[in-house]
This record gives sequence, C-alpha cells and structure tokens, in this order.
Amino acid sequence: MKITRIRTAVGPIASEIRNAYISFSTMTINLVAVETDETRNGEPVIGYGFSSNGRYAQTAIINERFTPRILDADPSEYIDEENDTIDPQKLWSIFMRNEKPGGHGDRAHAAGALDMAIWDACAKLAQKPLWKLLSERFNGGKADERVLVYPGGGYYYPGKELDGLRAEMQGYREQGYSYVKMKIGGADLSLDVKRIEAVIDVLGSGQYLAVDANGRFDLDTALSYGRAMEPYGLFWYEEAGDPLDYRLNAVLSEHYSGPIATGENLFSHHDGRNLLRYGGMRADRDWIQIDPALSYGLTEYLRFLDVIDQHGWSRRRLIPHGGHQFALNIAAGLQMGGSESYPGVFQPYGGFADKIPIKDGYVTLPDDPGIGVELKPEMLGEMRRLLSFE
Amino acid sequence: MKITRIRTAVGPIASEIRNAYISFSTMTINLVAVETDETRNGEPVIGYGFSSNGRYAQTAIINERFTPRILDADPSEYIDEENDTIDPQKLWSIFMRNEKPGGHGDRAHAAGALDMAIWDACAKLAQKPLWKLLSERFNGGKADERVLVYPGGGYYYPGKELDGLRAEMQGYREQGYSYVKMKIGGADLSLDVKRIEAVIDVLGSGQYLAVDANGRFDLDTALSYGRAMEPYGLFWYEEAGDPLDYRLNAVLSEHYSGPIATGENLFSHHDGRNLLRYGGMRADRDWIQIDPALSYGLTEYLRFLDVIDQHGWSRRRLIPHGGHQFALNIAAGLQMGGSESYPGVFQPYGGFADKIPIKDGYVTLPDDPGIGVELKPEMLGEMRRLLSFE
Repeated sequence: MKITRIRTAVGPIASEIRNAYISFSTMTINLVAVETDETRNGEPVIGYGFSSNGRYAQTAIINERFTPRILDADPSEYIDEENDTIDPQKLWSIFMRNEKPGGHGDRAHAAGALDMAIWDACAKLAQKPLWKLLSERFNGGKADERVLVYPGGGYYYPGKELDGLRAEMQGYREQGYSYVKMKIGGADLSLDVKRIEAVIDVLGSGQYLAVDANGRFDLDTALSYGRAMEPYGLFWYEEAGDPLDYRLNAVLSEHYSGPIATGENLFSHHDGRNLLRYGGMRADRDWIQIDPALSYGLTEYLRFLDVIDQHGWSRRRLIPHGGHQFALNIAAGLQMGGSESYPGVFQPYGGFADKIPIKDGYVTLPDDPGIGVELKPEMLGEMRRLLSFE
Repeated sequence: MKITRIRTAVGPIASEIRNAYISFSTMTINLVAVETDETRNGEPVIGYGFSSNGRYAQTAIINERFTPRILDADPSEYIDEENDTIDPQKLWSIFMRNEKPGGHGDRAHAAGALDMAIWDACAKLAQKPLWKLLSERFNGGKADERVLVYPGGGYYYPGKELDGLRAEMQGYREQGYSYVKMKIGGADLSLDVKRIEAVIDVLGSGQYLAVDANGRFDLDTALSYGRAMEPYGLFWYEEAGDPLDYRLNAVLSEHYSGPIATGENLFSHHDGRNLLRYGGMRADRDWIQIDPALSYGLTEYLRFLDVIDQHGWSRRRLIPHGGHQFALNIAAGLQMGGSESYPGVFQPYGGFADKIPIKDGYVTLPDDPGIGVELKPEMLGEMRRLLSFE
C-alpha cells in the first residue's frame, strides 16, 4: 500500500459577493487528490480535499514542499497495518518535515487541503465514513446523528439592499435552516441596524441571527456595535476586531453580554490556545470557529481539541468555519456544536451531500466511505476536471 | 513614472548546516526585482529584494496575487511627486488589496521580499541610501554612523564538534566581530553546556555570547537550560519555546534573570504586539528580533515601531533577524540596537557591503543610493542571473 501520486489544481470560486473586508471575485481555493495503489469494491482509492473560501490557492506549497516529502518517504513510515489503511497523523509529520515553527498562514491552508484528502483516503481504505472512523478512534464510539448547520450568508450584494436581504433569508428558512448569519461592518452602523432589523423581521427573533464583522472593527467601533446590537439577543457577534487582537476581544466580552464568536482566521492550535489564554472567551456562551481545512487539517485540529480539554471547555462550543463536509464529519464524529454551511454561494463547493436535506436547522450524515465528496457529483466532476482526471 | 515589470525567482541557499529544528539543505528564498521606466545617472532604476533564510520561496504568491495588483494600478496611485520617487506605503496597500486579516506566514515572507525591492527602488529614485531616506522621513534626520552586528553562527555541523566550533568562533573574532551567536537545543543539555564553555573559552567572557534554541524547548527544558546557563552571564538566550507560546516566554522571564531574545518567527505587528502584551518581555534588558524581510517588509515594520513606542520601549531593544542589508539600513536610519549578520553561511546573500569591514563588532553604512545590493557584486550577479536579466 502506498501513495502513488498527489495532484493539485487551482479552483476558482468567482462570486460577486463581498464581506466587510474583501471581495470574492478573484478568490481561488486549493484542490487536491491523493492517489493510492489500492482498490476497494473494484475502484481505485483516491482521497479528495480542498481548502475553504476566503483565502487563495497555494498549490506551489503543496507541490514544491509537501508532496516530495510524502513521495520520498518509505510507505512503511505511514502504513497503518492494523486497520488496513494509511496513517494521516504520520503522513502529517512527514509532509511537515523541515518546516519552521510559527508563520501559520498560506502553509496552513495548503496543509489543510492536503490533510483533508489524506483523511478522505484513509476513511475510504478503512471503508468507513469519516465521522464514524473519528468517533471510534477519538470519541469512544459516540457520535451525533445530526449536526446544527447555519448558512454563512447575508453578504453585501451591490444594489440588493434590504429587500434582497429579506428574500435571501426567507430562502434559507424555506431550505430548512433555523439559524442564519449575516455580514455587518460593510456599511455604517445605522444602515447595519436597519439590515439586522430587516432580517429579524423574517426570522421572528434575534436569537436565530448571528452577525459577522470579519475583523474590521477597532475597539471603539466594536463597542458601539455591541451597544446597538445587545437588545436584539443575537445568536452571536462574530470577529469584531483583528483576529490576533485578543485584548480587543477580551474587552468586548466584558461589555457585550451576548455570545461572541471568533477563530476562523486563527490557523494553528498555538493561535487557538492564545485565544483561550488572552481573548476573554467565556466557556458558558462563546463560540470558537477554527476551520480545519484552513488550519493544517484535522490532524492539527485534534491538537486544538486537547487545548480545549485542558482549558475546561466543552467541544460543544466549537463550530468550524468553512461550510464543507470535512468540518461536518468532524462535528458529528467528535460531537461538536455545529458546522457552517454555504448553500447558495461558493458553488460548487458550498453545501453538503445533495441527497440529504436540511431539516429544522440540522443535517444528518451519510454512511458512504470517506468524507462524502462523491455525494456532491457536480462538485466532484468539477474537481476531477480541474485535477485532469477527465 | 511607473513600475513596468516585477520579476521573481527562487534562490537556492543550499547549506549543510542545521539548527535545532530544521536542516537548511533544501531551503530556498524569494528573489524579486522591481523595474521602473525611470533612469538615474543614465542607468535604469531597478529595485532588488530577497527574503531571509529559514523559510521557503513563495514566488507564486507574488506572481499570482501581488504583482497583478501593482501592474493593474494607475501609477498616480503610487507616485510620490514631491520626492520624485514611488511611495512604498501606498504600493503596500495596493499589493495587499483583497487579502484577509490574520494568517501571517508565507504571504508575509513574499510581501517582505517585494517590499524590500520597492524600498530599494524608492531610495534609488530619490538618489539616497535607504538609511538616510529613513532617517529623514521617520527619525528627524538622526541616524547611527555604525551598527552593532553579530554573526548568527555556531550551527551543528555534523561531525564538527567542539574543535570545529572553536575554530568557527575564532574566525568571527578575526573578522572583527565582538559578539557572536551559537545554536543550542540540537544536542542534550550536557553537550550544549560543553559547547557553550568551549565558545566562552574563545571569547573570554559569556557577555559576548548569545545562544539560540530556535523554538524547540517545552517549558521544563527551557527552565533547565536557563538554570544551567544563568551563571555564564550570556548576551542573550534566544527563542526558548514555540514563537507563539507567549506564556512560556513570560514564565521563563520570571525565572531566568539574563536577557531573553525572540521574535524572528513573528511576522506582523499584531504578533509583535501580542509578544509585548503577553510575553513578559522586560524593557530594560530583552531583545526583539522581528525580521522586516520576512514580515511584510519595512512598511509593516514601521507599524511595529509605533507599537514599540506605545508600549514605552526603546528602539534600541530591537535587533532584526536576517543578516541582510535591508535590516542594516533600517537599524542605522531608525537607530535601533543592531542587526544580525551571516558572514560565513547562506551565501551569497549573507553579509554586508564587500568594501566595508567589520570593526570592533560594528559596521558602517555606505553612501550609495538604495539598500546597497550593488556593493555585493557576487550576490547581485547571482540574483540577476536567476532573475533572467543576463
């Protein structure tokens, strides 16, 4: 058993939407395929991975640094004989050889996509869905049958204004979502308050609405928004300030009594630990959103789960960013708080298995081996075309 | 006046040396040339930049993201008419458009090399050495005539052992250096103590010797080394733990009374601010080593200098990592504590202007326009060859 080839490609996710910080019109993501010399049920075993939206593809880092280290390794270094599969944690140590500590950015996103593909291959070789494999290995066999999901929408569509936002949110409700998220900080406070009230109008209550500032605010603005939004009793107030400004977050948490969420722009367990040490996050209400697909993968995320345990937090306070099946499998198998979703945007990569509907704000998991990319045929078709399989 | 082309290339810095964390045998660096349509003294103005050792080239990030944004910009967005040159700070904002906050890794190194080339071009257009331009713009015309430099050497050369280390340090002394640095943590404590004593033997006193663990130690090991080394009165004890483990650093600073140094693996002013907020660094004795060439360039480093001022620190506590003429110009023009040097390794990129000798541990600065790459003809020749000028 061995890994025979690692393919990469750049996937465009061109979209007219924007958040408070960036436009997505030129965004790209990593696509990765890990090929093995094994077959299961007569089919060659190939693992697929991709990075989440919001960053750019870094295929050069995979091709120039990670892939040669894996292909140069002796397969005995990474075969898991007992389970007739490959060992993703050993492969992680191999592909991260000779990388210095610190500097968790593009390398973390590249590693996340590669690690996803490796775990997909691992689960397919073991002939199990990833959520089940994780449940057995790391969670005493327990798993959640359904996972809370919410659409990360409510962007600023130029010219769309309030009616468009209401229609978008109504659409999410019709698709089966209970909780929704919208962007703030791309307009001034008074317009954002009108936007928030328009969405609450659709949802019936602020408790179903999360808002996301995408790291744009300074302390004064973060506190002003907090004061204005506190009466609405929102689901959460996300990423008010720069992701590394832990003090801003800590001060905000002493002035805003509602739940705070952050973490999608922290890309290692070291950064996540600093958020817990210095960010003033409250274990009884706040949410941490580190995204395994952008943060060195599940292998690094398992280290962050150890940090969570050490600090006395429940895994139920974790809802990963990204809206991909990788995070969904992790959330189910390790019993976390939920998983983001992108039903309408970042296509074809947003959303989960085509055949499984969202119901009452929850989604169930398929029993097919691996992460489930085969259950999104349009996405897999585009990935295989860009990866030159077809 | 406009930027007409940006070239990039991958520079090998193959070397047999290693530190406690990585081998340098497959390391590469970014090479960048920023071409303008201007001439000075009959020569076309070209700015040159490169990233420091220890990370890998990320030319794809420059070519795919930064360069198109600059070449697509209207030159009026970045021309500095008053000074008949280009404005590096405006160019930084242009090439960082549509990049999300957080994730300061490979992108920071790529931006550092590009920003260096832009400042080199800026100073050449203004027909001033960079240190002088910085002194006038940001330091009220004051500058240091000479800068403390120390060789970042004392690596683990396989098979070299104590005699080799002694000979290496003797060589630095003969080249004019007073202070030297050696690696620790690549062997066990007892062998490292022998290595330290061998070097002190050459130097005459521990006050001339800095030691560097390259982020390898856990807290127990960091404290053990601290206890063993405290009696030697070393120049500093560098990067004991992971660069993002501010708490380890803070605990160490309460148990190790000698100077501590860290920061070469922090790549933004946000991370540097966290070091000051949480790392327990002492303003009367410790050293901060953020490297502008790896950390989004001088433009971001100026933001870090604001952070330093806000926290009541002196710029004399800053000694950038990297051993390049960019940091040397910054250290002289902004009156910092010193600059690292790599006289024997990472050739041809290590070391300063060929014509200026090291004397009593200090180096003086040339008066030629720009950063001074033209004063290292061997390096410039290799850069121009790899960048396909010749």
